[in-house]
Amino acid sequence: MSTEQTRESVGVVEVQRVDIALPEGGLRLESGGVLPELTVAYETYGELSPERDNVIFICHALTGDAHVAGWHESEGNAPGWWDDMVGPGKGIDTRYYHVICANILGGCKGTTGPSSVNPETGKSYGSAFPAFTVGDVVDVHCLLLKHLGIERLAAVIGGSFGGMQALEWTVRYPDMIAHCISVASATSLSAQALSFDVISRNAILSDPDWQDGDYYETGRMPSTGLAQARQIGHITYLSSEIMTNKFGREKRSNDTVDTLAGHAVFRSDFQVESYLQYQGEKFLQRFDANSYLHITRTLDEYDLESGFESLDEALERVKAKVLVVALSSDWLFPARQSVELANGLLRAGKQVSYCLLEAPHGHDAFLVHIEHLTEVLRAFLPWVTPSPTAPQAKPRALSGRAVPGRSDYDVFVRESKCLAEMVQPNSRVLDLGCGDGHLLEFLKETRSASGMGVDIDLESVIRVIDSGIDIFQEDIDEGLGMIPDGSYDFAVLNETIQVVRRPRFVVREMLRVAREAIVTFPNFGKWNLRLQLALRGRMPKNRALPFEWYDTPNIHLFTLRDFIDLCDQDNIRIAEKVCIPHGRVSELLVGFGQCNLGADRVVVRVARS
Amino acid sequence: MSTEQTRESVGVVEVQRVDIALPEGGLRLESGGVLPELTVAYETYGELSPERDNVIFICHALTGDAHVAGWHESEGNAPGWWDDMVGPGKGIDTRYYHVICANILGGCKGTTGPSSVNPETGKSYGSAFPAFTVGDVVDVHCLLLKHLGIERLAAVIGGSFGGMQALEWTVRYPDMIAHCISVASATSLSAQALSFDVISRNAILSDPDWQDGDYYETGRMPSTGLAQARQIGHITYLSSEIMTNKFGREKRSNDTVDTLAGHAVFRSDFQVESYLQYQGEKFLQRFDANSYLHITRTLDEYDLESGFESLDEALERVKAKVLVVALSSDWLFPARQSVELANGLLRAGKQVSYCLLEAPHGHDAFLVHIEHLTEVLRAFLPWVTPSPTAPQAKPRALSGRAVPGRSDYDVFVRESKCLAEMVQPNSRVLDLGCGDGHLLEFLKETRSASGMGVDIDLESVIRVIDSGIDIFQEDIDEGLGMIPDGSYDFAVLNETIQVVRRPRFVVREMLRVAREAIVTFPNFGKWNLRLQLALRGRMPKNRALPFEWYDTPNIHLFTLRDFIDLCDQDNIRIAEKVCIPHGRVSELLVGFGQCNLGADRVVVRVARS
Repeated sequence: MSTEQTRESVGVVEVQRVDIALPEGGLRLESGGVLPELTVAYETYGELSPERDNVIFICHALTGDAHVAGWHESEGNAPGWWDDMVGPGKGIDTRYYHVICANILGGCKGTTGPSSVNPETGKSYGSAFPAFTVGDVVDVHCLLLKHLGIERLAAVIGGSFGGMQALEWTVRYPDMIAHCISVASATSLSAQALSFDVISRNAILSDPDWQDGDYYETGRMPSTGLAQARQIGHITYLSSEIMTNKFGREKRSNDTVDTLAGHAVFRSDFQVESYLQYQGEKFLQRFDANSYLHITRTLDEYDLESGFESLDEALERVKAKVLVVALSSDWLFPARQSVELANGLLRAGKQVSYCLLEAPHGHDAFLVHIEHLTEVLRAFLPWVTPSPTAPQAKPRALSGRAVPGRSDYDVFVRESKCLAEMVQPNSRVLDLGCGDGHLLEFLKETRSASGMGVDIDLESVIRVIDSGIDIFQEDIDEGLGMIPDGSYDFAVLNETIQVVRRPRFVVREMLRVAREAIVTFPNFGKWNLRLQLALRGRMPKNRALPFEWYDTPNIHLFTLRDFIDLCDQDNIRIAEKVCIPHGRVSELLVGFGQCNLGADRVVVRVARS
Repeated sequence: MSTEQTRESVGVVEVQRVDIALPEGGLRLESGGVLPELTVAYETYGELSPERDNVIFICHALTGDAHVAGWHESEGNAPGWWDDMVGPGKGIDTRYYHVICANILGGCKGTTGPSSVNPETGKSYGSAFPAFTVGDVVDVHCLLLKHLGIERLAAVIGGSFGGMQALEWTVRYPDMIAHCISVASATSLSAQALSFDVISRNAILSDPDWQDGDYYETGRMPSTGLAQARQIGHITYLSSEIMTNKFGREKRSNDTVDTLAGHAVFRSDFQVESYLQYQGEKFLQRFDANSYLHITRTLDEYDLESGFESLDEALERVKAKVLVVALSSDWLFPARQSVELANGLLRAGKQVSYCLLEAPHGHDAFLVHIEHLTEVLRAFLPWVTPSPTAPQAKPRALSGRAVPGRSDYDVFVRESKCLAEMVQPNSRVLDLGCGDGHLLEFLKETRSASGMGVDIDLESVIRVIDSGIDIFQEDIDEGLGMIPDGSYDFAVLNETIQVVRRPRFVVREMLRVAREAIVTFPNFGKWNLRLQLALRGRMPKNRALPFEWYDTPNIHLFTLRDFIDLCDQDNIRIAEKVCIPHGRVSELLVGFGQCNLGADRVVVRVARS
């Protein structure tokens, strides 16, 4: 699933700091607090186009910072936190895009935060640092962009807490954002994730060295508390599976149970304990306890819908095309929260695609295991005028597109034409089991149709996104609950009804979400199939049903008459029916109106009676 | 799924304390540590039978104690921790069983632990309390049973950490245990669960009031640390889903974000925060920090296989019949760990049943949401002579047993007879998709067969357990990976091959785990089915295939000839074939050897060529 492209590093980079000019009286925050001064630290990669239309803004997560890609000459060779994703030839390709990332308000990596010097006292803010919201974080970054003369973003992208900021951008500044990507995120934190944050903060607050936040002058940090907080966080970033694979129950040494008393007896020798200890200590070197308190508080308090009547009302404001990506083993921001977000966008009638990446590594996978994520992002990001030195053709998301997944291409085209003729021009079409999206593209070209696909297969999903069409990665058998009533003109089930578990339910759902449904299927009543069973006593096969009985995906066989009867029974009207013959006899039979005997495949348009 | 039985409380109970007579020099622990004195606190419910053969020993979990059921007159009306499960008419029915539960070694509820008085100093042990193992915990309880004159347990039962103790019993004292039930447990803790314990202990160890464990005389407990530890634990006991349902993002008050600085700004008003706070505080009143440290350490270190070459070698020792129960939303002791245990027991050739209960409440469900668990336990527990006042018939696990799940009972009996004749007497039989276990019972009665069933449906699983037959709750399509090669004489797939996703794979698996396979299926090649399709152009139905095409569970239709061809292709030899006709024509056809035309159903015995 990888593309043959040279991936390079952006090389040596520098963090830049800018003092933002504030209005008289300083920056008023949503909490009512005021900051007299504001510095923002940021990095950029790739050239800004003359039209300034190729800017991608990356929102960093809880403990991230502006240093996304490349390395700082001064600080050894540690690459930025998303170096695998950002660079020439990478998922976010700096040959095309001008990428910006800035440290967030309240952070400790250059943007004004609790450890910054309060100009009113000449000392660190400490306990005097005001509470702030995700809205404030985004406002500060918006001030930075204005300062840089950037009016509009080709895309805003964020994972985890960064995804929340990206969503806030699309609601707060809808006119500035063309595309938004939310990875492993949510519109608000779950109760479980909240709980872990509460306990993490308590670990810091109960550390005697915290000193109510004014520890900067004491020479001591609340290290014990901050390390404990980080350790709790770290467990939630990994899946149980990956922890088992990585550490299992291995011990550092072969010490047997001994009679040590006091402290030592309670130190286990499990590798996972030293790993956590290491993570805690490493964190102390790069993070500030007050920043951790403030940012987790801001994260906990965030709810995209606050200030609105409902999530749907908030999402009404979105003008960007949105991509929502969930990770399979993420339990901190579980996939169901991404699904809720994507469903909300659908209800609000927005352009949204959703996919679930298989990533066994848990929440952190978006940072480290990014093979599929790279493809998805590349497919979704808008094409922009490349710089003179970059390739002039958009690199495709996947190396070559599959031919239509049918055994007979002619039949596919013929059937698609039949189907297309049933679709009124400029209709909105939902294609269930859309595969690589060929039919939707065909309908777009021939009928100016717009619409969305649904498919369970990730490669198909990436290809459909790459062709600019919205898609939901979903198992049709699980229902179309995410799609509002009557939101499409046509729902299409092309050569798919025979592979679903609950065909009757799926057809009903189609007529809930669309005015009409178009169903195509192989006809088990065709003459030669009947003869094969009757005379040979074997499960029949033909062009339309090419599989052996024991490995066929076609788990519900039926004839055209069977389908018509089901429609009668369910008060469904057959508005149009095209029988596609194959072979001379078949053509003759269909010609004589003997559709159930002659049709190889059938295309039926139905509506509620 | 509930039975109509009166469930009563055991009423007022008292905790009893006994000083166990120790050998010269005290009790030597596995760690090498020594306890000069040993007190054990325990409770009992139900009468001990004159034969002393009706004893059930319950092993309590991490923070549990001996008070399982009823209430103490002195301490208000709080019922025991498993009062819903233990009592007259309940899952563990005290009209039949004499139930014993004892506080574990190292606890703080009456059995000798770190807060007990050390006779050598006259003060609490504190830091002088020696490390101990699960083996020590079980040994201490074994001493108690000996003291009480009990030589053998009808059953040992435990959930969570209690399940580990129950397993240790079966390996350590195999001759004492007839039945063992492990609920939501494992043979060792996962790396993730270990990590949470490490962090919990660190919270206590870093509390200045812990004083290296010698805090009893200081007048201060390490309350902050212990409360934090309990809060972390509490999150892991609940599923994310139940936390969302219970608390969501609700706040105690409608305070808006304010400019509070210092401590207060970091106290959220989320209900989940006050819930955790309450849990932490409540715990302080009933638990001792050193007990928490010691017991979690013991739990973390436990691995059933330590001291053995492998898990399988450890499980070789088991003589009890074992029931392994997992809970669907338990992420602390995830179902896969129960599956590993059950698989190990199978590999070791032991009698084991496994089931997975749908319980959305997480790990704690075994304490609070016990509807299904009650049925499963009732079904599994051995029948014992009741006391004179109790009903003399064993209450059935479910209120009435379903008739065989076939449309035609005669056909079922006839087919079962055909099948039974293929099974050699005293064979070991695996029945895949065994339903309520009627066939296995039939084979037991008519052929003295022993064996095991596999089914995905919980009600079926409970009924099979109730009839005394072992069963694995599993989806056949997921494979039979848990069953060792060649462990059965016959694998049976009775009227099930047509509902599995991968029939070819399943047949191959059957011939891996058994010497021969017996498959019964409806024949799609029967004359009347052929005619229905050929002449009517409709998907055919008959007695053997009664469902409509759109809601049939039969997703792979095939004829007898199709099956024979698949066998040829896969080098499978047909050892015996019985064609079961239905109706006059059918009988004639089968009589003339036209099996594929005449057979309504087919029973085939196959083996590897």
